[in-house]
Amino acid sequence: MTVDSLIVPDPPLEPYVRLVPLGGCGEIGRNMTLVETNDDMVAVDCGLMFPDEEMFGVDIVINDFTYIRERASKFRAVLVTHGHEDHIGGIPYLLREFDVPVVGTDLSLALIKAKAKEHRFDQQKFQTIEAGESIRFGSIDAEFVHINHSVSGACALAIRTPAGLIFHTGDFKFDQTPIDGRPADFATIAEVGDEGVLCMLSDSTNAERPGHTLSERVVGEAFSTIFSRAKGRIIVASFASNVPRIQQVVDHAVRFDRKVAFLGRSLQNVMRYASELGYLRVPPERVIQIEEVDDYPPAQVVVMTTGSQGEPMSALTRMSVRDHRKFKIVAGDTVVISATPIPGNEKSVYRTINNLYKLGATVVHGTDGKSHVSGHASQEELLLMLNLVRPKYFIPVHGEYRMLVMHGQLAVRTGVAPEHILTCENGDVIEFCGGEGDKVGKTYGGHVMVDGSGVGDVGDAVLRDRKALSNDGIMMVVVTIDSEEARIIAGPDVVTRGVLYLPESDGVMNELRNELTGIIENCSLEGIRDLNTVKEHIRNGLSRSIYARTKRRPIVIPVVMEV
Amino acid sequence: MTVDSLIVPDPPLEPYVRLVPLGGCGEIGRNMTLVETNDDMVAVDCGLMFPDEEMFGVDIVINDFTYIRERASKFRAVLVTHGHEDHIGGIPYLLREFDVPVVGTDLSLALIKAKAKEHRFDQQKFQTIEAGESIRFGSIDAEFVHINHSVSGACALAIRTPAGLIFHTGDFKFDQTPIDGRPADFATIAEVGDEGVLCMLSDSTNAERPGHTLSERVVGEAFSTIFSRAKGRIIVASFASNVPRIQQVVDHAVRFDRKVAFLGRSLQNVMRYASELGYLRVPPERVIQIEEVDDYPPAQVVVMTTGSQGEPMSALTRMSVRDHRKFKIVAGDTVVISATPIPGNEKSVYRTINNLYKLGATVVHGTDGKSHVSGHASQEELLLMLNLVRPKYFIPVHGEYRMLVMHGQLAVRTGVAPEHILTCENGDVIEFCGGEGDKVGKTYGGHVMVDGSGVGDVGDAVLRDRKALSNDGIMMVVVTIDSEEARIIAGPDVVTRGVLYLPESDGVMNELRNELTGIIENCSLEGIRDLNTVKEHIRNGLSRSIYARTKRRPIVIPVVMEV
Repeated sequence: MTVDSLIVPDPPLEPYVRLVPLGGCGEIGRNMTLVETNDDMVAVDCGLMFPDEEMFGVDIVINDFTYIRERASKFRAVLVTHGHEDHIGGIPYLLREFDVPVVGTDLSLALIKAKAKEHRFDQQKFQTIEAGESIRFGSIDAEFVHINHSVSGACALAIRTPAGLIFHTGDFKFDQTPIDGRPADFATIAEVGDEGVLCMLSDSTNAERPGHTLSERVVGEAFSTIFSRAKGRIIVASFASNVPRIQQVVDHAVRFDRKVAFLGRSLQNVMRYASELGYLRVPPERVIQIEEVDDYPPAQVVVMTTGSQGEPMSALTRMSVRDHRKFKIVAGDTVVISATPIPGNEKSVYRTINNLYKLGATVVHGTDGKSHVSGHASQEELLLMLNLVRPKYFIPVHGEYRMLVMHGQLAVRTGVAPEHILTCENGDVIEFCGGEGDKVGKTYGGHVMVDGSGVGDVGDAVLRDRKALSNDGIMMVVVTIDSEEARIIAGPDVVTRGVLYLPESDGVMNELRNELTGIIENCSLEGIRDLNTVKEHIRNGLSRSIYARTKRRPIVIPVVMEV
Repeated sequence: MTVDSLIVPDPPLEPYVRLVPLGGCGEIGRNMTLVETNDDMVAVDCGLMFPDEEMFGVDIVINDFTYIRERASKFRAVLVTHGHEDHIGGIPYLLREFDVPVVGTDLSLALIKAKAKEHRFDQQKFQTIEAGESIRFGSIDAEFVHINHSVSGACALAIRTPAGLIFHTGDFKFDQTPIDGRPADFATIAEVGDEGVLCMLSDSTNAERPGHTLSERVVGEAFSTIFSRAKGRIIVASFASNVPRIQQVVDHAVRFDRKVAFLGRSLQNVMRYASELGYLRVPPERVIQIEEVDDYPPAQVVVMTTGSQGEPMSALTRMSVRDHRKFKIVAGDTVVISATPIPGNEKSVYRTINNLYKLGATVVHGTDGKSHVSGHASQEELLLMLNLVRPKYFIPVHGEYRMLVMHGQLAVRTGVAPEHILTCENGDVIEFCGGEGDKVGKTYGGHVMVDGSGVGDVGDAVLRDRKALSNDGIMMVVVTIDSEEARIIAGPDVVTRGVLYLPESDGVMNELRNELTGIIENCSLEGIRDLNTVKEHIRNGLSRSIYARTKRRPIVIPVVMEV
């Protein structure tokens, strides 16, 4: 089925359940799957994706809500598995359009509400649920099941419908020795498996990685080594939402008698919410303000910050180029980047590391496999999940295409029938009825780009222009002619950006103006009065001329005004 | 010493040798080091670097030749360690300006001459040398020493000067079981060490990697497994210059009775040169044209191609999106990407892999650690080189800053005095005299960007414009006014690219035009006649207005013509 055939057939009259992944299949980010029965529909998550390098100027990418829009009357709720941006970042945009409750654990909801400064929310829309509890929306009953991940309060979902039981793992790992002492709820997962799962959707992020993802506790061991050796200050960069990681930094600060300062608003927000909700235990006397750091000897300070991905405006990146207002890296500092680069971020992460070295810091980074561990299940855990749940059908989600393929191959090894592996692209509509299921149609699953306040108005045409502009710049020719004989009254002026270094291009610009005058006068002499034809002559003449001089092909725009 | 202090003091009267790294220190690419004595100067390599994602529209980056230009009369030669682009890519630009011989092994020179289609060369300038031979330019004597690397004919250089012996490793690894049967020339390296090396410069690319880089032979073992299992066609993507890798593909084609087709001009060029020079043994009856592939059963074909880095226009990338004129990937094909992504290329490489999976191919990629091995020495080899050469001073080169730092730490472990580790930035001038040396000055070591036919004319200002254009586009306002009363005669027209999707923005554009008319008429009424002031009003008004509507900040250019 190709993208062109956007056809969703009418559903059957018998009880059915449809699964529609709108994002996260064949990509990392903007995870969202619709679960739809005859009378009701819920969304599992509603995430955002960060733009890739070809999406010039785009702030974030969200999902296409067309399928929901067309069935708005049966849309009941958003169920949130956990509070990461790739699972919650699209919710503000969804709520602008649909008045439904958002259901999740307390920390997940706190992380959504933290966006309140950017977006207005109706507080009554949020419904807190605890792992182990269920919530019903008409014919759909969703049970939240505790699993492990790199943020606290993360859940899988057992979704019971009249047409069968759907199990969605969310993002997960199996941590047998988690920092909060709560391994995944194996008992419930096994019971759900016993009950009979029609279809499982599972996290494919690490499906290519053999073995077992290491426990968060391993990071603690690495921290112990680092904290015991460092003679100066320690700076730890991580994701703000990684509550277990924050806990480990705090625990080591206590153990090695260092004060801890939290740098950055997002980190302070998470610290406050997670502490209030009991996910984080921070002795108040241990915390200092970033302004107080210099009041303590270097060996008694640890600073937590964001910027583990080399984001240009982040605290760590600014520190690395001595551009941070409140904190300066000095020789003797130890910087721990407790994360690995997300694909595409390698260059900026390593640039930051290089710059930190130039400032004399020692840098430990997550690629050592110890000072960071992944939050996602590797192959052995994925196999364990498959063996616990024993689904009839399997949809690998949350991953690029090759990861989905690999995850499907793992499922076959555990006994799922190869024809029951449904490797999806975004927008595929999967329908189950009478215990059997398959792809039955396709809805809009494309990227909706958010740029400034515009949602979806930047499309391929605008991006093509931005790309062309970024490659070779733009040249504009402006001329005023009289409407009778098409003779030049004013101009031609040449305005340009991104083509040539102007202070050194006076000669070239004069030559171009003279050539253009010749072209326009020729048109006049040859009796060419049609403005579009005149413009075409200008465009072709200038393009040729600039290419001959520079081998560059800027966008050329002629503006001819008649008076 | 900061970049601002571009000062190179006068050299001493006593015999001295200066080392000036112009590129490759603190970056991957454009490797080049000048070696200068009282009367003579040679360059070791002259490479290019590929632009990073911030260098919009730039084709390649080369070195700043100012230091050479200022000492042109003593500039004698370019010594080429091996034929990779990051060591030879800048030579055509250097030869435009300086009439000096280029010295290297036959294959290195063949790879330089292969650029003849793009650049005109004086063939007499090329001087072939064999490993084991020396060449003298006045007071500088350079001995070429065989080492292993991912291209054949690679050498280190022992450079004897009146002020001491400089050893430059070039890019190297120690392969104890190389495909061509020629391990590095340990004897000569050890003898050079015995002779007493004043300063060594050494390849830092893999300085962060523990252990020993695997032998090229390991790739053969991986190929054996792949070739014995694949039931369909095999497609191998690698770098065109990787002669040992090409040999392995050919050897396996012979062993598993497959015909081999070479796809792409660069690969065919290398194949021809390397065969003629005896570096590659290809039975002619084994080779078929790409057009003949369909004449053979899939199990009897292997295709070699380029595109291992996901380069947009490369053969493999085109195949992955079914855009290659001569070759279509089909289900059952096995694609071997015999390379690892260069940092920054990960996204495009993985995009290619995902697309190949979607076409039904099986993909094996270099990240398995077997179907590709690095051409650069890991820590144990770097330590071995240090122990063989036992230099008094050490300059880590060819690497990002953190790699240079790490390599310096390795050198200290082998006994080099910490104060004799000279971690350089590009443009640093290191001077040795009387057996002692240090940084004495700084010359221009910045990026010279090549865009089209322009060398160095694209600078920060043009790049800033291109970046701004790529983020939010550009809006131009054109209006013709009468010079007496500044009343509108024609316009205002608004021309825009990369801001809004125009077919849907008619309403907005009309509103903007009306607002602009108001602004200009106001100027007229208020008696504002100064064109710059009118333009300022237009610019501010339009910027505000477009930001209020879209939260975007395009470049706004007002063009006001007076008649």
